[in-house]
Amino acid sequence: MSPLVSWEGFPILMPTFEDCPIAITTDFGADSAYVGVMRGVILSINPKATIVDHTHSVPSYDVLAGAVLLRQSYHYFPSSIHLVVIDPGVGSSRRPLLLITEKYAFVGPDNGLFTPICESEKPWVIELNQERFFRSPVSRTFHGRDIFAPVAAHLSLGVAPETLGRQIVDMVTLEIPTPRVVEGSVAGTILRVDKFGNLVTNMTPATLGEARISRDDLVMRIGDQVVQKWVESYAEADPGVAIILLGSSGLLEISVNQGSAAELLRASAYEAVFAYRKPG
Amino acid sequence: MSPLVSWEGFPILMPTFEDCPIAITTDFGADSAYVGVMRGVILSINPKATIVDHTHSVPSYDVLAGAVLLRQSYHYFPSSIHLVVIDPGVGSSRRPLLLITEKYAFVGPDNGLFTPICESEKPWVIELNQERFFRSPVSRTFHGRDIFAPVAAHLSLGVAPETLGRQIVDMVTLEIPTPRVVEGSVAGTILRVDKFGNLVTNMTPATLGEARISRDDLVMRIGDQVVQKWVESYAEADPGVAIILLGSSGLLEISVNQGSAAELLRASAYEAVFAYRKPG
Amino acid sequence: MSPLVSWEGFPILMPTFEDCPIAITTDFGADSAYVGVMRGVILSINPKATIVDHTHSVPSYDVLAGAVLLRQSYHYFPSSIHLVVIDPGVGSSRRPLLLITEKYAFVGPDNGLFTPICESEKPWVIELNQERFFRSPVSRTFHGRDIFAPVAAHLSLGVAPETLGRQIVDMVTLEIPTPRVVEGSVAGTILRVDKFGNLVTNMTPATLGEARISRDDLVMRIGDQVVQKWVESYAEADPGVAIILLGSSGLLEISVNQGSAAELLRASAYEAVFAYRKPG
Repeated sequence: MSPLVSWEGFPILMPTFEDCPIAITTDFGADSAYVGVMRGVILSINPKATIVDHTHSVPSYDVLAGAVLLRQSYHYFPSSIHLVVIDPGVGSSRRPLLLITEKYAFVGPDNGLFTPICESEKPWVIELNQERFFRSPVSRTFHGRDIFAPVAAHLSLGVAPETLGRQIVDMVTLEIPTPRVVEGSVAGTILRVDKFGNLVTNMTPATLGEARISRDDLVMRIGDQVVQKWVESYAEADPGVAIILLGSSGLLEISVNQGSAAELLRASAYEAVFAYRKPG
Repeated sequence: MSPLVSWEGFPILMPTFEDCPIAITTDFGADSAYVGVMRGVILSINPKATIVDHTHSVPSYDVLAGAVLLRQSYHYFPSSIHLVVIDPGVGSSRRPLLLITEKYAFVGPDNGLFTPICESEKPWVIELNQERFFRSPVSRTFHGRDIFAPVAAHLSLGVAPETLGRQIVDMVTLEIPTPRVVEGSVAGTILRVDKFGNLVTNMTPATLGEARISRDDLVMRIGDQVVQKWVESYAEADPGVAIILLGSSGLLEISVNQGSAAELLRASAYEAVFAYRKPG
Repeated sequence: MSPLVSWEGFPILMPTFEDCPIAITTDFGADSAYVGVMRGVILSINPKATIVDHTHSVPSYDVLAGAVLLRQSYHYFPSSIHLVVIDPGVGSSRRPLLLITEKYAFVGPDNGLFTPICESEKPWVIELNQERFFRSPVSRTFHGRDIFAPVAAHLSLGVAPETLGRQIVDMVTLEIPTPRVVEGSVAGTILRVDKFGNLVTNMTPATLGEARISRDDLVMRIGDQVVQKWVESYAEADPGVAIILLGSSGLLEISVNQGSAAELLRASAYEAVFAYRKPG
């Protein structure tokens, strides 16, 4: 933690992130030389940086998917610098951002990626405008390398966040689909499909409670496909049969034990999913 | 190494794993946020942990493939904590395990993954039952995050293995296909297909010796496809032609120089492969 | 840096690489147990080694692609040991190499991978012949594990490069496609396709200058597909439309905002691409 500092006239206590790990989230794929180059840039600035991959499986250009994965995972890390590059607007007028919470720094583009952070925490939001912390020259096509990785590396050296830019209050947000609930029925969305073909919805046990649907009575529907077996763990289900369970991120999932629900139900991210009470 | 300790009434010398690297093996894919979250959990417990990826290419739910890859690789690591999560039975009554050998700790589910370790070494086998070393609450769907990663992290802090659970003697094992040999003929199995399409069999040079088949006389057959050229290295073969050679894990492989034997022969893991003497 | 040393009778100043990171480039895929085993071998020799993935996305056996990716990225790393394994000739008479520049060491096979390094720098080129720095025995199929990773690890311990082999002057090189330029027209090549489907050509802004083609007049053609819009950043283009821009590695790229140029134009690596002036 930094000592009391003055920023824009007010004394504030903003944390610093010296020696904190840098956790990387991108849509580049784990194999990618683009990620490799970002790692090289970080080590060039801070040879002792701890670099750790969060995920590189965000679908290309899918800012919403990035926001959802970040929300699900960021709090499992210790005090960290989250370097997040899903950036279809690179080189346009979209701003480069730094968000600071008590425990985390987030570095990435101002395109809505950080919407969930602002829902769960009250971060300082800073527009990065201090070019002395960037690579030079800054390209129009790869700010992950030229702006975000260098800023993350400088944070890990202990550079004070408030020296990196100016506070803003108009961060871009995006709409993250939330379930609509009426008595006995929920209209929700598949938020993502994981590597196993599990369909992660945006419903929680609380959503069902609100709709007054019990697990025993629960039916879920995607298109014309209906699933109506609740289990507590994948292994309780017969292999090959679609079931509903509480996934590891606290969201309801449609899954197939040792198979792919996405394939079986021919479903994909952002499709509608409905929950209602078993008729009868 | 720990000093002499007493465990279940007997003084024993069980190693500890302070500062040892944590090598991760999963069926999650290298890109996966699930692996990222496990890394975050480890660093939350031991910020100085050395985390190293062994492989995340185990086919989904394929415990046998995980066991085979682990057997092939674990001994190339220095004294390490092998964190292994191929876990289709997560949340069921299958037990969480810790195996301790002189040089390695293995953490993962009791589903047969560690069968080869018990064939090559005489490990202590411990059922993990000390919840104070787990995350809380423990989910029913992701013990990699909630049990195995935390236990691995605590081991890397120097926590004594014998404090983590109780010794058991009935670990689950699975049958790893071994070749059947008669004079002049071997019935074997393709154990795995690697990224290059190489077909890794379960036969060794010793298997051929037992069957009294010389390399010059060797023929291998998969389905109706026959391969009969032995080479010492990939580069000795003409590109596009299937050959047999001794692979890097000491097993016979069917390969295609600069091509994919799996594609050329339309073969996949767990298919039968036969070896016999060239007729005539 | 090492002190003045004598090598082959001459006093020279050859750098050493103690504590430098080891950056890995392969065609194995990031998931691969082969990469995992190399990491294990490195840590067995130097438990304090910093291992960092550059990329594992080089297409299988594609030495030229490896050379191109290495050229594009190596200089973004701090003083490092680049461990590079794209090695279809493993086990043949091709030599294992070490290249030393002022800032970098490169370890890998003598198959042309290091051609670009010799174009941009004047490295010492050393044939690795000191088996005491290899694993024993050395297999015929995996020198990444048995020769290159061990040598990289020993370099990171501070072993003097000149003790690892003997200087050679006949390193294998390969032809890296360069554009042919005449007034008003360029015949070039697609050097690689990235994960987003961007087509990275071998032309630079200087190539266009040489051909006296302005950006406003520029037309590019691949097969019967024509692209004629220059933009400064992906976001300037309408989604779904092919455009030309200056990519992050300083090369001209054909791209589609939020889409794949490779798919849209049905183009792939090593195809011909032409640049000329918009007909008046």
